[in-house]
Amino acid sequence: MTLKVYLSGEIHTDWREQITEGAKGLDVSFDSPVTNHEASDDCGVAILGAEASKYWHDHKGAMVNAIRTRRGIEGADVVVVRFGEKYKQWNAAFDAGYAAALGKSLIVLHGPDHQHALKEVDAAALAVAEEPKQVVEILRYVLTGELPEGALAAAE
Amino acid sequence: MTLKVYLSGEIHTDWREQITEGAKGLDVSFDSPVTNHEASDDCGVAILGAEASKYWHDHKGAMVNAIRTRRGIEGADVVVVRFGEKYKQWNAAFDAGYAAALGKSLIVLHGPDHQHALKEVDAAALAVAEEPKQVVEILRYVLTGELPEGALAAAE
Amino acid sequence: MTLKVYLSGEIHTDWREQITEGAKGLDVSFDSPVTNHEASDDCGVAILGAEASKYWHDHKGAMVNAIRTRRGIEGADVVVVRFGEKYKQWNAAFDAGYAAALGKSLIVLHGPDHQHALKEVDAAALAVAEEPKQVVEILRYVLTGELPEGALAAAE
Amino acid sequence: MTLKVYLSGEIHTDWREQITEGAKGLDVSFDSPVTNHEASDDCGVAILGAEASKYWHDHKGAMVNAIRTRRGIEGADVVVVRFGEKYKQWNAAFDAGYAAALGKSLIVLHGPDHQHALKEVDAAALAVAEEPKQVVEILRYVLTGELPEGALAAAE
Amino acid sequence: MTLKVYLSGEIHTDWREQITEGAKGLDVSFDSPVTNHEASDDCGVAILGAEASKYWHDHKGAMVNAIRTRRGIEGADVVVVRFGEKYKQWNAAFDAGYAAALGKSLIVLHGPDHQHALKEVDAAALAVAEEPKQVVEILRYVLTGELPEGALAAAE
Amino acid sequence: MTLKVYLSGEIHTDWREQITEGAKGLDVSFDSPVTNHEASDDCGVAILGAEASKYWHDHKGAMVNAIRTRRGIEGADVVVVRFGEKYKQWNAAFDAGYAAALGKSLIVLHGPDHQHALKEVDAAALAVAEEPKQVVEILRYVLTGELPEGALAAAE
Amino acid sequence: MTLKVYLSGEIHTDWREQITEGAKGLDVSFDSPVTNHEASDDCGVAILGAEASKYWHDHKGAMVNAIRTRRGIEGADVVVVRFGEKYKQWNAAFDAGYAAALGKSLIVLHGPDHQHALKEVDAAALAVAEEPKQVVEILRYVLTGELPEGALAAAE
Amino acid sequence: MTLKVYLSGEIHTDWREQITEGAKGLDVSFDSPVTNHEASDDCGVAILGAEASKYWHDHKGAMVNAIRTRRGIEGADVVVVRFGEKYKQWNAAFDAGYAAALGKSLIVLHGPDHQHALKEVDAAALAVAEEPKQVVEILRYVLTGELPEGALAAAE
Repeated sequence: MTLKVYLSGEIHTDWREQITEGAKGLDVSFDSPVTNHEASDDCGVAILGAEASKYWHDHKGAMVNAIRTRRGIEGADVVVVRFGEKYKQWNAAFDAGYAAALGKSLIVLHGPDHQHALKEVDAAALAVAEEPKQVVEILRYVLTGELPEGALAAAE
Repeated sequence: MTLKVYLSGEIHTDWREQITEGAKGLDVSFDSPVTNHEASDDCGVAILGAEASKYWHDHKGAMVNAIRTRRGIEGADVVVVRFGEKYKQWNAAFDAGYAAALGKSLIVLHGPDHQHALKEVDAAALAVAEEPKQVVEILRYVLTGELPEGALAAAE
Repeated sequence: MTLKVYLSGEIHTDWREQITEGAKGLDVSFDSPVTNHEASDDCGVAILGAEASKYWHDHKGAMVNAIRTRRGIEGADVVVVRFGEKYKQWNAAFDAGYAAALGKSLIVLHGPDHQHALKEVDAAALAVAEEPKQVVEILRYVLTGELPEGALAAAE
Repeated sequence: MTLKVYLSGEIHTDWREQITEGAKGLDVSFDSPVTNHEASDDCGVAILGAEASKYWHDHKGAMVNAIRTRRGIEGADVVVVRFGEKYKQWNAAFDAGYAAALGKSLIVLHGPDHQHALKEVDAAALAVAEEPKQVVEILRYVLTGELPEGALAAAE
Repeated sequence: MTLKVYLSGEIHTDWREQITEGAKGLDVSFDSPVTNHEASDDCGVAILGAEASKYWHDHKGAMVNAIRTRRGIEGADVVVVRFGEKYKQWNAAFDAGYAAALGKSLIVLHGPDHQHALKEVDAAALAVAEEPKQVVEILRYVLTGELPEGALAAAE
Repeated sequence: MTLKVYLSGEIHTDWREQITEGAKGLDVSFDSPVTNHEASDDCGVAILGAEASKYWHDHKGAMVNAIRTRRGIEGADVVVVRFGEKYKQWNAAFDAGYAAALGKSLIVLHGPDHQHALKEVDAAALAVAEEPKQVVEILRYVLTGELPEGALAAAE
Repeated sequence: MTLKVYLSGEIHTDWREQITEGAKGLDVSFDSPVTNHEASDDCGVAILGAEASKYWHDHKGAMVNAIRTRRGIEGADVVVVRFGEKYKQWNAAFDAGYAAALGKSLIVLHGPDHQHALKEVDAAALAVAEEPKQVVEILRYVLTGELPEGALAAAE
Repeated sequence: MTLKVYLSGEIHTDWREQITEGAKGLDVSFDSPVTNHEASDDCGVAILGAEASKYWHDHKGAMVNAIRTRRGIEGADVVVVRFGEKYKQWNAAFDAGYAAALGKSLIVLHGPDHQHALKEVDAAALAVAEEPKQVVEILRYVLTGELPEGALAAAE
C-alpha cells in the first residue's frame, strides 16, 4: 500500500525536491502545500475578490490554503515538517501540532541551531532529522527494511 | 488522489453543471443529491408504499434521500453548499451544519443579498463565493496551485 | 444525571421561557445562544474592533457566537431546534445539521406550515413537536417515565 | 457549567494574570503550562536523571511537560494562545495546531506586527485579539451575553 | 468514581429490582428504559398526537424512547442486557449490539435455554450470567475486588 | 464510488440472491455472513479444536464469525437486516444495533407480522421494506436517482 | 480538576502504596486492577460457575477483570505501567499498548535490566522512571509545577 | 475487498512464511514489522546518528520502527500476534493491546505453555490458535466460508 507523505514547512530551499527525487522507486506518494509564495499569499483575493484590509486579504488566502493543507495532513501516513533557517514559520509548527493531535507519524527536519526552540515539537515526533537525505532513508527503511549501505557497521 | 466534492443545495439553476463542466480535466469527482424534484419528493412512497398523511409521505422520502446525502457528505473532502434566490432551503443549511460538524472543508455559494442571513453558515466555511466559476477556480488552485490568469496582477 | 438540553433557533417569541418554566422541578439544565439580537449581531466588533465592511462585521460576530453555540451543542444530550413563522432561520437549520452529525437526540419544534420545507430536518429528529409544552412533556417522560394526565386514555 | 479555558504561549508578561483577574466572578476555570521557565526546561532531568546531551536533556523535559499540556488542551472548551513580541514561540503555534485539530474553540492573542506571519494560525481561530482585556470580554460575553459598557454604541 | 450501569431488556420480572437492591452500598448508579409497558408503547402519540396507522403509532413511541435509551447506553460504563423466557425481545439484542459497537462492557443475563440462540450476543459480552445475583457479584468484584464468601474455596 | 452493502440476518430463504440478482448492473458490492448454517455453527471447533461444552463450542464459532461480520458491517455504507418468519434471530437485531451505533444507513426488511416487535429496530432505520425487490429499488434510486417505472404516477 | 491515574502491572511489591502514599495532598485519584492474585485468577468461575478446562477458567476471570481494567484505563489521564523483576507480565505490556492507542499519557516504571526488552513500550511513554518516588515527583510537577528540593541545582 | 492482515510478534521462526505461503490464492495482503533483528535494533542510529547511551540508541530505533508498526496495525482488518517460546516479547503484547484498543480483530498464536500468562491477551482475541496453519484456515473461512476438509465431520 502506497505510503502517503505530506511535506510541510519551509518553502525557500529545495528540500522537497531532494526528498521526492531520493525516494524515486519507492511506493510513496507526496503531497505538500502550494509552495508558490505569491500565489499562496494572494489566492483568496485573486479568486474571491479584493479586500481593503491587509488582515482580511491574508485571512481569505489562509482559508483557501487550509482546504489543501488539512486534506493533505488528514490523508497522510507520515507528516514531515521542515523548519528552515529564517522566518517565524509558525504555520510549520501549527501543522506539526495539527498532525500530532491526529496521531500521524511525525518527522521533524531542522538544523542543530533550532534544537532548543523546537524541543516541544521534536518531543511529538518519531524522528528528528537534520538532512532531507535522512528522511529518504527513513522512508526506505519503513517500506523495505533496508538501511543505507555501511550504516549498520558505522552504528557500532 | 482524486478530490471528492459534494454539491449540496439549490436544484433550480444549472450551477452544478457549471462547476462540473468548468472542472473538466481536474482530478475531481462530484456527487450530489438527487436533483429531480419530483423523484426526490416521492421516492419514499414510490418504493415503500403510499401514505395517507402528507407528513409521513414526506418523511419516507426524506429518509430514503438521507441514505444518499449522508454518504455523499461523509465521503467528501469538500462540501459546496449553494443557496439560491428563492425558497427556505433549510436542507441546504442542514447539510452545511452536518458537514461542519464532521470537519469537512466547506465552501458556501450565494448572492450578496443573503449575506446577513447566512452569516453563521459562512462563518463555518473556508470560502464564500458568489459564482460557480469561483468554486471551479478554488478547486483548480487547491489541486494544482494555479490561479486564474491575470488574477494575481488584479489582486494588487 | 442532569439532562443537558440546548435550545436553538427562533429568538422572537418566548418559547424558551415556556420550556424552562414548564420543566421546573425536573433534573434538566438548559443552554441556548445569546438571544439579545443586537448583542449577538455586534459582539464581534464591539469587543474586537470595528470593521468597514458589513460582511466582516457580521463574520466577526458569528465567530464569537460560535464559541458559545458549539460548546452548547457539543455538551448537550438533547438539542431542541425551533423554527418560527418568519425569517430564513438558516442558523437554526445549520445547528440541527451540526447536532445530527454529532449523534445528538434532536427535537424539532415548528408549526404545520413548515412541514414540507423542513422534511429533511424532521427526518433527522427523534421527535417533531408543534408546541413548547410538548417538548416539556417529552423531557418529563424521558426523565421520569410519566405521561401527561389523561394522555394514555386519549391515545386509544 | 464551568467554562474550561487553557492559556497557552508566552510566559514573559503577565497576560495570564490580567485574564484570570479580569474574569473574576465568571464561571471559568483556567489551566496553563508550567510558566516557571527554569523548572519547565529542567523538569525531565531533575526528576528522571541527568543527560550528557543537551538534546536529550531538553527532550526529557518536553515529554514531562507534555503530560500537563495535552491534558490541559484536551480538557479545555476554549484554548487561548498568546504570541509575544520575542522568541520563536513554536510551542505556542504547535499548541494552536493541536487545539485546532481537536476542534477546540481557539482564541489567538497577538500584536499587529505578527499579523501576516500568523495568518494560518489566525485562520483557525474563532477570535483574534490584541489585548488580554478583549479575551476577558469574550469570555464574559460567551457566558453571560453581556458586552462591555458602551461597546454597542461605539460599534455603530 | 461511580460505576454507571444501564439495565436493558426484559420488563416482565423483577430482575432490575434484584440487582439494584443487591447492589445497595456499592458506588453504582443505575439507569434503564421506561419499564411501564403501556407508557412505553404509547408515549409518542400521547405527547405528539394520535396516528391513524399502527406503524406510525409505534414509530413515534420508539423514537421518543430512543432519546432515553441512547443516552442511557452512551453514558454507561457497563450495559447489562437481560433476555427473558418469552417474546422476541429484539430491542434487547439491538441494545446489546449498540453497546458492543460503542465498546461498552457488556454483561448478558439469560437462562440456559437461550444459549445457542444468543451465541453471537454472548460472544460480544465480558460476562454471561444466569441470575441477577451474579450480576451483583460482578459489580461488587469490579468495584471492590471482593468475591462472594466461600466462592474461592468452591472454585477449586 | 461503489456502494458497499452488507446483507445481515435470515439465512433460510433466497432474499440475498434476489437482491444481488436484482442489483445487477448497479455499482454495488455485497458482503454477508457465512450463510452455510453448519459451517457457521462449527467453524470454531473445526479449526481451533473440539470443546467438551456446547457453550464453548458455540462461543468459539461465534468469535470466528465475528471477524467476518464486524468487518462487513464496519466497511459498509448500507446495512440491510432481514428478519424472517421463524426463529429468535437475535444476531440480526444485534447487527442492526451494531450498525446503528456506527451511524450506518440501515434498511430493515421484514413482513408485517413483526412490525410491533421490531419497532425499536425500525426506528433506527432509514427505510423499512417488506420485499427484497424494494431494497433493490432503493439501491437503484440512491445510486442513479431512478424510480421504478410507473411508481411516481402510482404514488399520487 | 482531579488528575486520574491508573496504576497497571506488577502486583508483588508495594510500589502502588509508595505512590499513593507519596502523592498524599495532591489532587490525584488512583485506580488499579484487583491486586489480590487469587481473587483475580478465580473471579470468573467463583461468580459465574466452575469450568472443567483451565483455559476457560482463566478466560472467564480475564473477561471479568477486563470490565475493571478497561474502565480504569479509559477513564485515566495518566497510565503508569510497572514491570517488576519477574514473570512474563504480558498483561502489563498489553495495558501499555491499550493506553497508548487511546492517546493516554503513559509513564513506564522498570529497572535498568529491562531497558532493551522494553524499548518499544518505553518509546510510547512520556516518561520512563526507575523508582515509584519519581512517579510521585512527576505527578506533583504536573499538578503544581514544583520540583523536588535541590533538583534544579543538581540538574546543572 | 482485500483482507489486510498484520503479523506481529516473534521473529525467530518461519511462522510468517507459513501463513503467507498457506494463504496463497486468497484475497489477503500481509504486512509485518521489519524482521531483520539487527536492522530493527540499529535503524535509529544508522540513519539519524550514533548515541553514546544504549538507552537512546534503542529509543531512536524503536521510534523509527513505530512509523511502520503503527501504520501496519492501524491499516489492518486483522492483527495476528505470535508469542514464541523464548524472550520477554513485550512488544508483541504491546501490539496486541494497541490493536485491541483500536477495535481490530485480534488472533493470538502461541503454544499451550503460555496459556495462563497470556490469559488477558487471549481474552481480547477473537481466536487463539496454536499453529500458523490454523490462522490460514481462519483467513480462508473468513473470506470464503470454506472449512478444512473433514473438519466438520471431526468436529462432531
